[in-house]
Amino acid sequence: MNNQIIDFRSDTVTKPTAGMLDAMMNAKVGDDVFGEDETVQNLEARLAGMFNMEAGLFCPSGTMTNQIGIKCFTQPMDEVICDQMAHVYRYEIGGIAFHSAASVRLLHGERGILTPELIEPEINEDNIHYPNSSLVVLENTVNKGGGSCYNISQIAAIHHLCNIKGLKLHLDGARIFNALTATGDSAHEYGKYFDGISVCLSKGLGAPVGSVLLGSKATIHKARKIRKAFGGGMRQAGFLAAAGIYALDNHVNRLQEDHQHAKSLAEALVKTSYVKSVMPVETNIVIFEVEQGSAEKVVHQFKAKGLLSNTTSSSTVRLVTHLDISPSMIDQAIEIILHLR
Amino acid sequence: MNNQIIDFRSDTVTKPTAGMLDAMMNAKVGDDVFGEDETVQNLEARLAGMFNMEAGLFCPSGTMTNQIGIKCFTQPMDEVICDQMAHVYRYEIGGIAFHSAASVRLLHGERGILTPELIEPEINEDNIHYPNSSLVVLENTVNKGGGSCYNISQIAAIHHLCNIKGLKLHLDGARIFNALTATGDSAHEYGKYFDGISVCLSKGLGAPVGSVLLGSKATIHKARKIRKAFGGGMRQAGFLAAAGIYALDNHVNRLQEDHQHAKSLAEALVKTSYVKSVMPVETNIVIFEVEQGSAEKVVHQFKAKGLLSNTTSSSTVRLVTHLDISPSMIDQAIEIILHLR
Amino acid sequence: MNNQIIDFRSDTVTKPTAGMLDAMMNAKVGDDVFGEDETVQNLEARLAGMFNMEAGLFCPSGTMTNQIGIKCFTQPMDEVICDQMAHVYRYEIGGIAFHSAASVRLLHGERGILTPELIEPEINEDNIHYPNSSLVVLENTVNKGGGSCYNISQIAAIHHLCNIKGLKLHLDGARIFNALTATGDSAHEYGKYFDGISVCLSKGLGAPVGSVLLGSKATIHKARKIRKAFGGGMRQAGFLAAAGIYALDNHVNRLQEDHQHAKSLAEALVKTSYVKSVMPVETNIVIFEVEQGSAEKVVHQFKAKGLLSNTTSSSTVRLVTHLDISPSMIDQAIEIILHLR
Amino acid sequence: MNNQIIDFRSDTVTKPTAGMLDAMMNAKVGDDVFGEDETVQNLEARLAGMFNMEAGLFCPSGTMTNQIGIKCFTQPMDEVICDQMAHVYRYEIGGIAFHSAASVRLLHGERGILTPELIEPEINEDNIHYPNSSLVVLENTVNKGGGSCYNISQIAAIHHLCNIKGLKLHLDGARIFNALTATGDSAHEYGKYFDGISVCLSKGLGAPVGSVLLGSKATIHKARKIRKAFGGGMRQAGFLAAAGIYALDNHVNRLQEDHQHAKSLAEALVKTSYVKSVMPVETNIVIFEVEQGSAEKVVHQFKAKGLLSNTTSSSTVRLVTHLDISPSMIDQAIEIILHLR
Repeated sequence: MNNQIIDFRSDTVTKPTAGMLDAMMNAKVGDDVFGEDETVQNLEARLAGMFNMEAGLFCPSGTMTNQIGIKCFTQPMDEVICDQMAHVYRYEIGGIAFHSAASVRLLHGERGILTPELIEPEINEDNIHYPNSSLVVLENTVNKGGGSCYNISQIAAIHHLCNIKGLKLHLDGARIFNALTATGDSAHEYGKYFDGISVCLSKGLGAPVGSVLLGSKATIHKARKIRKAFGGGMRQAGFLAAAGIYALDNHVNRLQEDHQHAKSLAEALVKTSYVKSVMPVETNIVIFEVEQGSAEKVVHQFKAKGLLSNTTSSSTVRLVTHLDISPSMIDQAIEIILHLR
Repeated sequence: MNNQIIDFRSDTVTKPTAGMLDAMMNAKVGDDVFGEDETVQNLEARLAGMFNMEAGLFCPSGTMTNQIGIKCFTQPMDEVICDQMAHVYRYEIGGIAFHSAASVRLLHGERGILTPELIEPEINEDNIHYPNSSLVVLENTVNKGGGSCYNISQIAAIHHLCNIKGLKLHLDGARIFNALTATGDSAHEYGKYFDGISVCLSKGLGAPVGSVLLGSKATIHKARKIRKAFGGGMRQAGFLAAAGIYALDNHVNRLQEDHQHAKSLAEALVKTSYVKSVMPVETNIVIFEVEQGSAEKVVHQFKAKGLLSNTTSSSTVRLVTHLDISPSMIDQAIEIILHLR
Repeated sequence: MNNQIIDFRSDTVTKPTAGMLDAMMNAKVGDDVFGEDETVQNLEARLAGMFNMEAGLFCPSGTMTNQIGIKCFTQPMDEVICDQMAHVYRYEIGGIAFHSAASVRLLHGERGILTPELIEPEINEDNIHYPNSSLVVLENTVNKGGGSCYNISQIAAIHHLCNIKGLKLHLDGARIFNALTATGDSAHEYGKYFDGISVCLSKGLGAPVGSVLLGSKATIHKARKIRKAFGGGMRQAGFLAAAGIYALDNHVNRLQEDHQHAKSLAEALVKTSYVKSVMPVETNIVIFEVEQGSAEKVVHQFKAKGLLSNTTSSSTVRLVTHLDISPSMIDQAIEIILHLR
Repeated sequence: MNNQIIDFRSDTVTKPTAGMLDAMMNAKVGDDVFGEDETVQNLEARLAGMFNMEAGLFCPSGTMTNQIGIKCFTQPMDEVICDQMAHVYRYEIGGIAFHSAASVRLLHGERGILTPELIEPEINEDNIHYPNSSLVVLENTVNKGGGSCYNISQIAAIHHLCNIKGLKLHLDGARIFNALTATGDSAHEYGKYFDGISVCLSKGLGAPVGSVLLGSKATIHKARKIRKAFGGGMRQAGFLAAAGIYALDNHVNRLQEDHQHAKSLAEALVKTSYVKSVMPVETNIVIFEVEQGSAEKVVHQFKAKGLLSNTTSSSTVRLVTHLDISPSMIDQAIEIILHLR
């Protein structure tokens, strides 16, 4: 067994393949702030079509597409409803308050999965003491929930409630292709239910940079101004967009391999004595529990063996599979997991 | 028994007594925006002295003193730690996000009472993904907790943690005199532990309008500018401040009467069949549980008998005793409670 | 001549007359946050009727009514068009940016008076680089313009432009009754042209505290929520509102006396050698120019004689006449002015 | 003469040369959000060294580096002093108010060039009515000023004032290399005078995407968090950074060619009858005046001949020279200019 580093810290660490790099360097580019980069426009149109939305907007990160989406669908003094695990609340440095001056109502779904029953009682009535409940944000898959998924009927039910109550519905689709792969749902169905969708290209898909916000023409018109304000308008961005197009062509079908890899890791983990429990694996994320306070230590022990991971709390560790993880790395990782102590 | 209305909706509904009105009418006033209203200055100085703080600032409401305090102690992208029941989070229309662009971390204390053990794990480490934890807000008594109290040793323990971790500590003292009455603690002790204290004059104390923010000279200098921005600088505000001074002279000692009244109401409530449980009564608030979904109905039934109350959820009702509730009203209320159905 | 202080610093320094005090102390009050203070409601309704608007909202200051109005009529990333002299820009501690996250476009009108010709070229086209021009704010009279006035036909012309271009129009009416007195225009006409009007009760009218924001029912519904967020909701505010009602009954007609007083002061000032020029006096404000850098000195010399004034720049001094300035004080002031050196 | 398009609209429209593309394709990349992209780090370090600053931060646009800089150096309710022509005020969609909740004080420099004499009287004293003057922003070269330049002694004088008064000084260096080329000043001197510098790579330097913010380590630590909030953290951003490094190696010395081209265009313009005046050409921007209201028409006439330009007002047109403009294009452009009518 060689000593290569096996990096399970995140699916964001992938580097472009030779094919992707070739696509990037041959991209036709222009000044996208002037609306003249055809590769960017092709990517935006393609994802909009795939998800049955009117328009798209290429941005440098998923944090930006999420925060622009939230800004589009709220006013100051509004309230955003999301799970307390939500990336938009937990890991985007308080952007809901900072950019949108909006409050949050935090629910406690099962592994971050919300239901109409959880949401409905938390919608504020019209009263001068309360912020106006204007937006529900779902995350699919839920990162902190261990890659848990919504299927389309769960989404439809939440959309139904939002529609009745006059709330907008935004999707943080950081790992939407993992969810689609796991559920077998059609991307096209999503356009019926969401007002905004953030699709990430740099996680499971393996592109170096970028996310696309999808919405109606009016939403994207507004989003384009907000992107300008955020400084997210890039000039010859087609080099990055080309990688996204390549990824859509070449890296979607292979996600099931990442999911199989994650399952294999979980199967090894449950056999060990230092692991107390493993969250059910639905996609490419494995979160397992160790003794309270020892997560940091396990990460260090793994690291000493060449296996990189992250803690998600003082008693939980996360492994993420991705494009740059080969079957032989999985074999090697299983060895490390089984013989850690 | 006559048909007078018994208003338990809030201790904010009190009207000035003849003595208070007389004090108001004879107040010496000036332009407080120019720093020339001596009655306002006397009130500010008196409360600062009582709570062992350097300076005070008179404001038109407790919402304003709280939100100015939070603004003084945070920067945009910071995070405020408070209980999920906190008035500053629940009932101030999302002001933490709106005015301060700060995120919230919501804890689940027992009846809204926080502890160092609850707070410490929720303080964020320095990481680009997380807002900066900069402020803890306590509420004493906790309104939504049914008037539950912190005593001074609990406060000292939280202050100790904040001090170590570099966080500021603010008190929402909407009903601080109720807490002091119940615990027997000294107001003077509070100055050791808090960076900011909001003291309300228009609840248990019975003044018509106003709250005072207490803090260091530097904090109040900053707060005065924020008050100007909020439009809370008033001209001849001494008329209102005079009522506050009168209340401090005359209405503090009598709060134990309100607390006794609340206990009497609770004793009646536990005897009835429509009440499932009553929160322990510590001060002037009684919250009791009825069958799920019937809180609204109970409030209406009370109202038909001349007793005004509020729901705090679909299964809980709140009664608040105060200066304008006489012993005979309590007797009458007990009759109504006992024979509601 | 006695040594009484003659306070020309501002018309905000007035203290209630015996009649006003009597009206205050006999006011019927209630909890206005619960919508139960009839005196507040009477004041709001009366001003709304007078200015031909649907509804009103009583607030603790003119800064608050202005900033709530601006918040009602803008979204973040909008732009407010006003004169560079405007109180909302100059003296409200950057509230347009702070509360509304809106940019400003500053025009240079003659003594702060805008025209459609000045405004039109400054309305931004729809372009991702520019904030959205959404609001024009007029001030009548213009404080920093030396009490200069718009008449109703000038206002109508600006309204016409705003209407065509889709902008809202807000009036900072800190001294609107002075403007009405000077122009002879009808308050009722104003309702046709403005989306929001801020009417101050504590300047020329002599009430101790308060301003009222006027607008449509929908605007005031929104404004009431923003007032809550600002902490401007007061409990038994009827004491203050009663003073406002008294002022409308008794202090409007006498404003022409203040204007006459101001003219008399100006006539004296032009006769002196230390005054380089005096702005034409239209209402109750006199601004005069002295040698560059000596305004501070003139204010001190006046003060030594018992006459209080303010600088408005290093070469200009302002005198404001008001209810607490008697004819004999004017005589005395003229003596001081004529014999300063 | 062939029919190639000559694009003078902006120096942002350039496309990478073969050499730059080669550098991009061979870049070593990593996940820059995790601090693991060595090409990004090399670029940041190189520019920091060049400008004598401690640290740098790569961002997707100059709007982002400017707005992050402004956010680093202000608090809400502060005031930013800049010329009314400043890009940060005019063309960044009101970002100063939107992101930083800061007000602006707009000066009228000669072609956008400020002086201590202009700035000093506009610094607010400490007074509750005024925002706190905390930052001066200079732009070098001034885009809307027709590429006008500050030299280092002018900058030193402004820094001296800021230092005395406690204000920070930020540079919008969108075209700083043009300024250095024109003045002969040393980049290294800049580090003495500025708290923050925004350096753009995608204008004169010809890189496809990106700007770098320079500052102290503490400033850049804070800026990195703000960049995260803005969604400006990119994953494998080294592809873009590599283009920036290539540009620093290869495209700085050639800027004098762009300046010579601009002068040649100006010489042609002054010979025509439809041009009323031409701003003095200091760098790569030519702004000329035509008859009031006819700027749009001139741009269209140019376009019909294959020459692309922009209006900067209804009577002014701007031409910008850059890397993709060859000497033969200049000859062709001169022909078009001389024979437009």
